[in-house]
Amino acid sequence: MPKPELTKKYKKTFAHSYTLGPFPTFELLRKAPNKAVCVYLHERFNDREKLEQLCAGHGVSCRYAPRVLETLSSKSACFAAAAFWKYSSSLSVKNPHIVLVNPSDMGNLGTILRTALSFGIHDIALIEPCADLFNPKTVRASMGALFSLRVELFESFSAYLRAFGHSRDIFPFMLEGAAVLSPEGCPVSDKYALVFGNEATGLPPEFLQYGKSLLIAQSNEVDSLNLSISVAIGAYIFTQKNVPLKEDAL
Amino acid sequence: MPKPELTKKYKKTFAHSYTLGPFPTFELLRKAPNKAVCVYLHERFNDREKLEQLCAGHGVSCRYAPRVLETLSSKSACFAAAAFWKYSSSLSVKNPHIVLVNPSDMGNLGTILRTALSFGIHDIALIEPCADLFNPKTVRASMGALFSLRVELFESFSAYLRAFGHSRDIFPFMLEGAAVLSPEGCPVSDKYALVFGNEATGLPPEFLQYGKSLLIAQSNEVDSLNLSISVAIGAYIFTQKNVPLKEDAL
Repeated sequence: MPKPELTKKYKKTFAHSYTLGPFPTFELLRKAPNKAVCVYLHERFNDREKLEQLCAGHGVSCRYAPRVLETLSSKSACFAAAAFWKYSSSLSVKNPHIVLVNPSDMGNLGTILRTALSFGIHDIALIEPCADLFNPKTVRASMGALFSLRVELFESFSAYLRAFGHSRDIFPFMLEGAAVLSPEGCPVSDKYALVFGNEATGLPPEFLQYGKSLLIAQSNEVDSLNLSISVAIGAYIFTQKNVPLKEDAL
Repeated sequence: MPKPELTKKYKKTFAHSYTLGPFPTFELLRKAPNKAVCVYLHERFNDREKLEQLCAGHGVSCRYAPRVLETLSSKSACFAAAAFWKYSSSLSVKNPHIVLVNPSDMGNLGTILRTALSFGIHDIALIEPCADLFNPKTVRASMGALFSLRVELFESFSAYLRAFGHSRDIFPFMLEGAAVLSPEGCPVSDKYALVFGNEATGLPPEFLQYGKSLLIAQSNEVDSLNLSISVAIGAYIFTQKNVPLKEDAL
């Protein structure tokens, strides 16, 4: 039997969190099984044998617990979930980074993690304050990509620069950016940090002083692109031009 | 006084819908003022004078109605909203199209509308069944971009092809796509339709027969990209290579 706190609705102060739904639960068990604590199943879950085998293989307890599933996932029906311990990671100095300065929306953050992994970027810096990385909403929006990435929190952008600024080219993405990013004109760089600001405010003007600021061309009919879209365009164009190292994946 | 049904929480069956929040409300009044019925304000809304002037200029009634705002926006505080009549549009035959086959998520749909407008694509086809275009969630995720676009519903992809297939190159985006889309290799086309499938299922295999199917290169570490991200990459690369007509904006 899991401890009672492992069956309670998520709070940010918990040392653990949850994957809600089969997809992120499978990803947890495949990519970070040592973080998994226990798995909850609904008897109507079709793929339960596969999940039970995976749990058995990693020594993770797995049980039918429809009521726990109901508690954890307040609205929609949830057929599988897992409790896992939160953890911290350190970024690789050898690989490209995406740096998110004060992202505030968990859905955006999760989508960005999924997108980064899609384009082969495994290292994400989060500058605090920021959306809760381990909230089940973030985990779910990431489709479990979280478990295949290194995500490190920094108390300020200066703290990030002290740790990694010497090792790479810095590209802040800003509406006031000095150059327009284009597919042909994308900078060539063997190690880079793509830096993006908060959803509502973007990066403050002082970021113009760091590296080479870039702007994604967009119509004057809109205020700005959605943050997750900006990151996707930046990451896609940079990884198409500068293929990330494959050998240093997690 | 607005009619009582114009103050009720949104239902899909209504002939009207709502913009919730100042941003989409301003967009409605700027881009589609003839659709606006009435505006509701909270006395704590800072920009109320600007909104009141805009309403007066278009003959749209505007009143303080904190209780209506509370009803319409069940969760978060909402300082401004508008009721507007739903409407239908017809796509331009001269311009590029984005075609969404059975999109099911209102947040994705809204984000895609915002992104399309950002990249200068003004014409969106929706193949039914699909997420509710006029649900306040869609309108909000679009940041009001909806009001600057032509969005037309079709009962099937065949119906879309009958109307517009002769006029353009068709590019279905599929994980089984025949060619990998790349920034350099992007097809040159003066009129095109970029076609995307449902979030969970993508496009069914029969779409391989239409035009030239494309795949966005992505790591095998993920199942697929989020739909709104795929559309953004496709729209960005195509509009960078094939600049859309500017004169035919709404």
